[in-house]
Amino acid sequence: MPVDHFSFSVLDTFKLRYLLNSTWQKTEDAPIFFYTGNEGNIETFAQNTGFMWDIAPEFGALLVFAEHRYYGESMPYSNNSYADLRHLGYLTSQQALEDYVNLIQYLRSKPEYKHSPVIVFGGSYGGMLSAWIRMKYPHIVQGAIASSAPILQFSGVTECEAFLRIVTSDFKTAHPNCPKLIRKSWNVIYNITSNDKGKKWLSDNWKLCQPLKNTSDVKQLISYLEDIYTNLAVVNYPYKANFLAPLPAYPVNAVCKHLTNQSLAGTELLTAIHKAVSIFTNYTRETKCLNLNDSAPELGAVGWSFQACTEMVMPICSDGVNDMFEPRPWNLDEYTKDCVKQYSVKPQPNLVCEQYGCKDLSTATNIIFSNGLMDPWSSGGVLRNLSSSAVAVIIPESAHHLDLRSSDVNDPYSVVLARKYHRFFIRKWIEEYRDKNKSY
Amino acid sequence: MPVDHFSFSVLDTFKLRYLLNSTWQKTEDAPIFFYTGNEGNIETFAQNTGFMWDIAPEFGALLVFAEHRYYGESMPYSNNSYADLRHLGYLTSQQALEDYVNLIQYLRSKPEYKHSPVIVFGGSYGGMLSAWIRMKYPHIVQGAIASSAPILQFSGVTECEAFLRIVTSDFKTAHPNCPKLIRKSWNVIYNITSNDKGKKWLSDNWKLCQPLKNTSDVKQLISYLEDIYTNLAVVNYPYKANFLAPLPAYPVNAVCKHLTNQSLAGTELLTAIHKAVSIFTNYTRETKCLNLNDSAPELGAVGWSFQACTEMVMPICSDGVNDMFEPRPWNLDEYTKDCVKQYSVKPQPNLVCEQYGCKDLSTATNIIFSNGLMDPWSSGGVLRNLSSSAVAVIIPESAHHLDLRSSDVNDPYSVVLARKYHRFFIRKWIEEYRDKNKSY
Repeated sequence: MPVDHFSFSVLDTFKLRYLLNSTWQKTEDAPIFFYTGNEGNIETFAQNTGFMWDIAPEFGALLVFAEHRYYGESMPYSNNSYADLRHLGYLTSQQALEDYVNLIQYLRSKPEYKHSPVIVFGGSYGGMLSAWIRMKYPHIVQGAIASSAPILQFSGVTECEAFLRIVTSDFKTAHPNCPKLIRKSWNVIYNITSNDKGKKWLSDNWKLCQPLKNTSDVKQLISYLEDIYTNLAVVNYPYKANFLAPLPAYPVNAVCKHLTNQSLAGTELLTAIHKAVSIFTNYTRETKCLNLNDSAPELGAVGWSFQACTEMVMPICSDGVNDMFEPRPWNLDEYTKDCVKQYSVKPQPNLVCEQYGCKDLSTATNIIFSNGLMDPWSSGGVLRNLSSSAVAVIIPESAHHLDLRSSDVNDPYSVVLARKYHRFFIRKWIEEYRDKNKSY
Repeated sequence: MPVDHFSFSVLDTFKLRYLLNSTWQKTEDAPIFFYTGNEGNIETFAQNTGFMWDIAPEFGALLVFAEHRYYGESMPYSNNSYADLRHLGYLTSQQALEDYVNLIQYLRSKPEYKHSPVIVFGGSYGGMLSAWIRMKYPHIVQGAIASSAPILQFSGVTECEAFLRIVTSDFKTAHPNCPKLIRKSWNVIYNITSNDKGKKWLSDNWKLCQPLKNTSDVKQLISYLEDIYTNLAVVNYPYKANFLAPLPAYPVNAVCKHLTNQSLAGTELLTAIHKAVSIFTNYTRETKCLNLNDSAPELGAVGWSFQACTEMVMPICSDGVNDMFEPRPWNLDEYTKDCVKQYSVKPQPNLVCEQYGCKDLSTATNIIFSNGLMDPWSSGGVLRNLSSSAVAVIIPESAHHLDLRSSDVNDPYSVVLARKYHRFFIRKWIEEYRDKNKSY
C-alpha cells in the first residue's frame, strides 16, 4: 500500500493487514461486506462485529476486515512508524480511506468480484470512516452502515457538554443517587488526600500499585475514575461482554448497586466507590493492584492520541452541575499546547468539517447512521435523516454500536429492530446496484 | 497554502495566486463565482471566461479566479518546483482541489462572505476540477458549471479513437475534401522528404526555422501539423479570438478554404497545406519562421505533461481511416516508458476513475456539464444527465468551452440558450442555498 496516496513525491509502500472470510460467499458477484477498521488491532473488530458474521450467510457475502494504518500490524514504517512526525504524519483519515479504496479495487480486479457490490460497516471512528467513504467514493461503495459514528462531535457543531451529560444520565437511570454520590466523591477524595495519612489510607484500601505521593497523583486518580465511568457507559451492554474490559451485563447497573445510599460519606463512600469501580477494573478478580497509568484499556491509544491532536479534535467538557464530573471547560489553547509538546503538531479543529462536511450533509446517500441513546457518543451522532436514503436509526436502549455485535437473547427489542432495518437497506442497495449494472 | 494537504509530515507552505474582483458584489452574502484554475497562468482564464464577468452584475457576485498550483506564479518551491520528483510530486488534482477549498473557506471566514453561496466555473481541465470539487465537497460548493470537461476521457470508459474523429468531422463539415487532402498529405510529405533535395524544398518553402535533416525531424513536422489541426478544431470559435493563437472567425473554415480541390497533389498540395496551416501559425503575419519545437503554443505545457504522466492519462489514438490522421494506436507501454524516462513516474491510468468515478456518477448533484459537439474534447464529456440536478447541456455548434466566453453577436443561438440555462441553474442553486440557510 502506498504510504502517501496524494503525492508522487513519497513512494514508500507498506503491508496493510486485512482479514478475509469466504465461508458463505456465493459463487458469482458475491456482495463484499467490508469493515473499515478503526483505531486498533483489526482482530478486535472482527471479534466484536458479530452482525456481519450473522448476516453473511443470508447474503452469500464475502467478509473483509481491513486494518487501519498505524494500528495493529499495519505499520507504514515498521518500528519507526511512531518515531517522529516525518514517519507518523501519514496517519490521517483520508489516507486510511484511500487504503480501503485501494483494497476494494484490488479485490474487485479479480474476475469473481468484478460485479460485487460493496457494503461497508463500521462502529465509532470506524463508522465515521464508513460514512465518509460512501460520501467521497459513492462510485466504489454502494452503501454504509455507520454505527455510533460521531461525525458531528466537532467544534461549532455539537456542544462539548453533551457527551458527559449522557454518561451521567446513564448512571442516573441505573439509580438516581448514583451520579450524586459520584459527584460527591471528588471532594471526599481531595479532602482525605490532603494529608499523608489519608493518602496512605486510600492507596492501601484501593490497592493502588503505586501509592499516592502528591497532588498530581491525586489528579491522575480522579481522571482515572472519570475515564472508567465514561467507558462503563460506552460499553453498557445487556449481557456479559469483553470489549474494553471483561464486564457483567449492564455494568452501569452493577456499579450503581453500590451507590444507592444517599447518606454515604467520607471513607464509607470511598469504600463503596472502590467496590463499584472494581466491576470495571477487576471483574475477573485477577487484578492484583490498580495501575493508574493503565486506566482505560483503550484500543490503539497512542495512535488515537495523535489523531486527536491533528484531525480528530472532538471537544468534550463538563460543568459539574448538569453532569457528575469535575467541572472542566474545553480549552483549545491548553489542548494545543499539549499537542505541540507531545507531537510538534497543532490541532486543526475545523479540518474534519471542511473535508467531510458537518452542517450540510444533504447530498449524502445510502448511509444508515445508527445511534444508541445510552451511548455518550450519540451526542455527536446523526440523529435525523439527512436525505431519503441517508437515514438516522435511533436505538433507545443501546450503548456504543451494540447493533454491530452478534445477536443475543438479552438484546433489547429496539436493537433487534435496528438490525432488521439494516438488513432491509443492505438488500435494497445491493438490488439497486445489480439493476444499474444490468443496464451497462 | 500547505504544499501537502494530506499529511502532517510535509509542513512547507507557498503562496497561491488568485484574482479577485468585487465591482459588482452586493453588500451582503454576495454569491462567490469561483473559477477553478487549470493548467496555465490564471490571467489567461480570467481573460477568456467572459461569461462570469457578463453575469456578475445580474447576480451581484464576487469574482474569484484561483490559479492552479505549479502554474503561473503559484510555484510551491519557487524555481525548484520542477527540479525533481520530490518537489514536483505535489502537482496533483486532489491537492489543487484542496487549495481551492482552503481559499473558499478563507474567504468565507470573513463576516461579509459568511453566508455566501459558492458557484464554481471551469473549462476543460478546469471544468473537470469544477465538477469534482462539487462531487467531493458538496458542503462547500453549491453548484458547478463544468464546461467541456472530459471527465470520461479515460481508459476503459471512452474509446481512444473518438477524439480525432471529431476533429476530422469538423474539417469535413468545413469542406468534404479538406480532411481527404490532409490525409493524403502525410505520404506526400514522406515521399518528398525521402531525399535531401525534397527536404530542402520543404524547409525553404515552408520557412522552417531549422531545416529538416533526418526522419526524426520529419516525424516531428507531422506531429506538429497534427497538433495544429487538433488545436484549430478545439478553438473553432465563431469570431476572431486569441485563445491558443490569434485566429480568424471559424478558423477551420479558413483553413479548409485552401483545401477544396480534390486533385491537389505533390508540391502543390504541400503549398496549399502550408497556406492553410499559416492561418494558425501566422495569422498576425509576424511569424518569421516555423519553429517545430514550439508547435502548439499550449498553456502550461510542462506541468501538463507531468500530469498526463501521472493522473491525467487520457488515451487518444487514430486509425487513419475514420480519421484524417496518421494511424497511431494507443500504446500504454510506450507511453509509460516515456514517462519513466522523463519524470521517473509510472502513469496510473485508473487513478482518476478510482478517485472521482467515471462509470457510476449517479449521486452527483448541482452540476452542469456543457459540451460543444464541434469540440473534440466532447468525446470524453458527460453527454447525458447523471441525475435530476447533474445535467448535460449539448451545444451543437460550439467548440471548446465557447459558453464560458463573453457573449458575442456572432454566437450561434445554441450557445446563447446554453448560457440562459446556466443562469437559470445558478439562480436555482443560490436560492436553494439561501432557503436551507434560513432554516438553521
